Amino acid sequence: MKPKQIGIIMGSKSDEPIAQATMDFLKEMNVPFWANIASAHRTPDLIGEILTADDYKDIRIIIAFAGMAAHLPGIVAALARPLTVIGVPIKSKYGILDSTFSMQSMPPGVVVLTVGIEAGKNAAIAACNILAQDDSELYGKLMTFRQEMAEKVRADNERARNTLSFDGV
Amino acid sequence: MKPKQIGIIMGSKSDEPIAQATMDFLKEMNVPFWANIASAHRTPDLIGEILTADDYKDIRIIIAFAGMAAHLPGIVAALARPLTVIGVPIKSKYGILDSTFSMQSMPPGVVVLTVGIEAGKNAAIAACNILAQDDSELYGKLMTFRQEMAEKVRADNERARNTLSFDGV
Amino acid sequence: MKPKQIGIIMGSKSDEPIAQATMDFLKEMNVPFWANIASAHRTPDLIGEILTADDYKDIRIIIAFAGMAAHLPGIVAALARPLTVIGVPIKSKYGILDSTFSMQSMPPGVVVLTVGIEAGKNAAIAACNILAQDDSELYGKLMTFRQEMAEKVRADNERARNTLSFDGV
Amino acid sequence: MKPKQIGIIMGSKSDEPIAQATMDFLKEMNVPFWANIASAHRTPDLIGEILTADDYKDIRIIIAFAGMAAHLPGIVAALARPLTVIGVPIKSKYGILDSTFSMQSMPPGVVVLTVGIEAGKNAAIAACNILAQDDSELYGKLMTFRQEMAEKVRADNERARNTLSFDGV
Amino acid sequence: MKPKQIGIIMGSKSDEPIAQATMDFLKEMNVPFWANIASAHRTPDLIGEILTADDYKDIRIIIAFAGMAAHLPGIVAALARPLTVIGVPIKSKYGILDSTFSMQSMPPGVVVLTVGIEAGKNAAIAACNILAQDDSELYGKLMTFRQEMAEKVRADNERARNTLSFDGV
Amino acid sequence: MKPKQIGIIMGSKSDEPIAQATMDFLKEMNVPFWANIASAHRTPDLIGEILTADDYKDIRIIIAFAGMAAHLPGIVAALARPLTVIGVPIKSKYGILDSTFSMQSMPPGVVVLTVGIEAGKNAAIAACNILAQDDSELYGKLMTFRQEMAEKVRADNERARNTLSFDGV
Amino acid sequence: MKPKQIGIIMGSKSDEPIAQATMDFLKEMNVPFWANIASAHRTPDLIGEILTADDYKDIRIIIAFAGMAAHLPGIVAALARPLTVIGVPIKSKYGILDSTFSMQSMPPGVVVLTVGIEAGKNAAIAACNILAQDDSELYGKLMTFRQEMAEKVRADNERARNTLSFDGV
Amino acid sequence: MKPKQIGIIMGSKSDEPIAQATMDFLKEMNVPFWANIASAHRTPDLIGEILTADDYKDIRIIIAFAGMAAHLPGIVAALARPLTVIGVPIKSKYGILDSTFSMQSMPPGVVVLTVGIEAGKNAAIAACNILAQDDSELYGKLMTFRQEMAEKVRADNERARNTLSFDGV
Repeated sequence: MKPKQIGIIMGSKSDEPIAQATMDFLKEMNVPFWANIASAHRTPDLIGEILTADDYKDIRIIIAFAGMAAHLPGIVAALARPLTVIGVPIKSKYGILDSTFSMQSMPPGVVVLTVGIEAGKNAAIAACNILAQDDSELYGKLMTFRQEMAEKVRADNERARNTLSFDGV
Repeated sequence: MKPKQIGIIMGSKSDEPIAQATMDFLKEMNVPFWANIASAHRTPDLIGEILTADDYKDIRIIIAFAGMAAHLPGIVAALARPLTVIGVPIKSKYGILDSTFSMQSMPPGVVVLTVGIEAGKNAAIAACNILAQDDSELYGKLMTFRQEMAEKVRADNERARNTLSFDGV
Repeated sequence: MKPKQIGIIMGSKSDEPIAQATMDFLKEMNVPFWANIASAHRTPDLIGEILTADDYKDIRIIIAFAGMAAHLPGIVAALARPLTVIGVPIKSKYGILDSTFSMQSMPPGVVVLTVGIEAGKNAAIAACNILAQDDSELYGKLMTFRQEMAEKVRADNERARNTLSFDGV
Repeated sequence: MKPKQIGIIMGSKSDEPIAQATMDFLKEMNVPFWANIASAHRTPDLIGEILTADDYKDIRIIIAFAGMAAHLPGIVAALARPLTVIGVPIKSKYGILDSTFSMQSMPPGVVVLTVGIEAGKNAAIAACNILAQDDSELYGKLMTFRQEMAEKVRADNERARNTLSFDGV
Repeated sequence: MKPKQIGIIMGSKSDEPIAQATMDFLKEMNVPFWANIASAHRTPDLIGEILTADDYKDIRIIIAFAGMAAHLPGIVAALARPLTVIGVPIKSKYGILDSTFSMQSMPPGVVVLTVGIEAGKNAAIAACNILAQDDSELYGKLMTFRQEMAEKVRADNERARNTLSFDGV
Repeated sequence: MKPKQIGIIMGSKSDEPIAQATMDFLKEMNVPFWANIASAHRTPDLIGEILTADDYKDIRIIIAFAGMAAHLPGIVAALARPLTVIGVPIKSKYGILDSTFSMQSMPPGVVVLTVGIEAGKNAAIAACNILAQDDSELYGKLMTFRQEMAEKVRADNERARNTLSFDGV
Repeated sequence: MKPKQIGIIMGSKSDEPIAQATMDFLKEMNVPFWANIASAHRTPDLIGEILTADDYKDIRIIIAFAGMAAHLPGIVAALARPLTVIGVPIKSKYGILDSTFSMQSMPPGVVVLTVGIEAGKNAAIAACNILAQDDSELYGKLMTFRQEMAEKVRADNERARNTLSFDGV
Repeated sequence: MKPKQIGIIMGSKSDEPIAQATMDFLKEMNVPFWANIASAHRTPDLIGEILTADDYKDIRIIIAFAGMAAHLPGIVAALARPLTVIGVPIKSKYGILDSTFSMQSMPPGVVVLTVGIEAGKNAAIAACNILAQDDSELYGKLMTFRQEMAEKVRADNERARNTLSFDGV
């Protein structure tokens, strides 16, 4: 069994629908992961417990989901040993402003790599891109994923060219 | 009967749904309060009447709700004797911009303590945090509230860890 | 000697010029305070050490200063026992957006009371407003401060009325 | 001597440079005015005193200047008898967001007519446009002002056409 | 029959629902008005035709409604003789940004008095405030309107005080 | 058969509803066009293939549709020979901010002409305005389109004037 | 002598520094142009005079510069016969918000093609891209301009690669 | 000599001051890198040449710097084989809006990991965090860097506690 090198930490149960896209892609790529829920504000101790648990000894990348004053990814980056933290901001009543800037504008020295608002799938792809440098099977799967994505666009293009173009009358 | 140390002032009847979360939490903590509705613009005199009424002689904290050009909390802070004013901004057609900045950006000398947009529950918690410094029963209730909140997250985490984690195939 | 009931925590040494206005007002009101510097991201452990130090046993109010992804006030609110946390956001290359929303948009259950951008003096006034409910000397000083502030405006008004008004020709 | 039909109220002495453009234009048009300074937050009583003073018995239009959480124009509109309130927002550390929306987004029933950020001259022109409906001398001056403004642009155009146009080589 | 002193110009038929609130209030106050639809971009000539029509010879105030790049109020202000132009911005796919700033940020010399986004009723009130200075009947109606508005808030306050306040248990 | 001088490139199949308004207007004006779908990120090669295909030898104007980090129009402008690129930004979870600025803020030297958010019809009109300089039939159709648009507004105005104006009672 | 097919219209003399970049590029490409200054608000009549002047009989493209509530390009597009209008927004106290959206968010039927804020050079390039479809000499110059631009970047890259890369120690 | 696993690509020579912070940190950590300058818009071909050059055969991480419509990181992510792309947005006349969202809001399938505005040092730290998982020497250096950073804050705290705290008088 492959070790789990990816940790997924949601700031609250309500982030699960967005994290689902991350987990689905990782499963599709057959990349094992731990899933956790821990709040930077409601359970500050729990974050440290997760990060030092035996489960996390092989973790290289943490994908953290949070909305509002989205401190979770930054606190994870502060408390974890040096590793990659990818932050996925989630919308709130403030729109995109609060969660995006709460994780993107980290001070020099501690860093969260931010993806787009609620971009759960892209967070998974970024994690796979890192792991694939030493995992040729995963690398191959990513190449296939890309090709299929491109082929779908090319098929759409073929259809558009043939059915939507206009010759004049 | 405990004196009422908290005054709740809504800028309009339409703010009541947001204020409900404040009132619910205060009731849960058994903290008595006066509830009022007064408009900074439609009833400028009423604010002064409320603040000087006999009802308000024990008030230490006012939680003021307002949307749009949300002047109510600032005017309350200007007219009341020195005490704490917590402002709860409410969304409008401008989104969060108008009410949030209308109460947050007070000039030096008169201050409104602002919580997040429509964060009625947090306004109540902040008020309880102040009163609990001299009220060990309330302090205990706040500790219990926090513990229950944390336990709920820990239960969510346990479930996530066991049901969402992925071992690979 | 009066106990120190106010803790000042700056997120970085660079916040000191803004915190100075806070400290100046507290000194003017003769309110003792502890001053600390602790980074939510560079020294996550230090925050817990400060909050549990013997110094902080009488603390009722913490004023926290932070810029960028301003997690400090929120983390302080999460780690401290129930008390008041006032957040002072500081400008960055993002303007006001990152620090303001990083501390204002706290999730339900943990709360930061936010003042205006870099409003160090108002944070001090808010703290004094809380303490003054049980301290008639401080209450008197706040009343004097307000009267002086009002008298200055009234003098400005007198001058404006007499020197800037225009009678026509 | 003509009665003073315009009241100018600045929220603070620091607004005077912007109000100067207003006062200069009114003088140019020979429109008498009262000038006042009154803070919605530091001197809430003073506003009522000014509005009910004998000075203000002929006032038809109030031009109010304010920055930050710019409550002054709205409070003036709430406290004054039915008349015209023109608000001039002034920049702060928040940029244009706080003062503009604090006066523009008034609730239904009480209204501030807002001009552009720091647009002191346009506030004066708007006031003159109202008074000129019953004052043919003022109306004539406004027409002359417009013609001079247009002639200046036409002269600029003539120069541009002749000196900046390019015939090719 | 009283002359029509108010002109209402909508930028498009789709602005009618917002303008309805303006027209309803004017009718309630028994203030006659002309209603027009003219697009700054689709019918630039029509604006001049309306402004110079015999209908408009008594007009003192124009209330102009426009969304998107809301040029209509500014163009009306440029083409009309000196009079009052009140602009009512209307939301679009850009939210409030495009129409609000397209009419508020007028260059020095030509002015639009802007009310809040889609604030049709307040535009009508502002127009009545101007006309009421010479019309005691209208002035009385405005006073009654204000009193009824205030009484409604006072009734709401009475109800809130009695039914929402909490005595503790 | 007239050559196709306009190329339409959508960044994804999901842009088709917005592009439909463009294609409908071009058909109404009897202007032939090629329709394509190509993603700047999923199929970077496909863009070059389209631009150098025989189909595109007569193309003078490309209308490119894209949402999110809307690189497509800019990449088309970079890869195509010197011709006109009109960009149509499409809304995303970020609102209008991401796509609009991703195509409007091009560096000096390579340019995208941007229309309003999702303004598919206006992109078509702009393209026709270019082609009509050498095509009197198209020029005539554009004149007719304008006249019909103006007549519709004039009819709306006539109706408004007659049915919405108010004479007082 | 080649006819002037490009008209440059600045909203005010103060726009000249930005328009200079446009005029410089057109001169470099040897493309003749008329230069004008006309204000949509101060000289609404002048715009029509310019557009119908004999000077403008060959104009195919108008580049219009405006700041604040930047109505000029939209009004030009409304008043001119069908041709291309390129708008160049200029910064104001509102930052980029007012001029950009005042010209970009045009209603369906009348269109301004907007370039980036103060992007005078790109407006000129866009105009040349249109004219070059029928002017092989201009087309050649644009190709040369592009090649020189690319070569400059390639030289920068060569230097960076050789002097900034780091081999480790 | 260690292979170069990091590629640095600046969108223009003007990005060099920001990239300097990245290069300085990598040198401090003794991590070799290639430095390049390539414009997504001025030299679209050059990007492909760099990515497929022999220099780049060991590259695992690309740090891309760009301002304005910052397409470079996204185009690099689209053209490169599966690897990590870190984007560093740079301010422009639009403030932070254009470059940040042009790289953060990537469509599903192709991803740029964005750091804060002009956060060159943090981009370097993020890259080292990835490489350090297989490089214990680098891991140790990162640990030392963190400790020194924390010690500096602790020293600042000690000084603040001793010199800024106030005992009252």
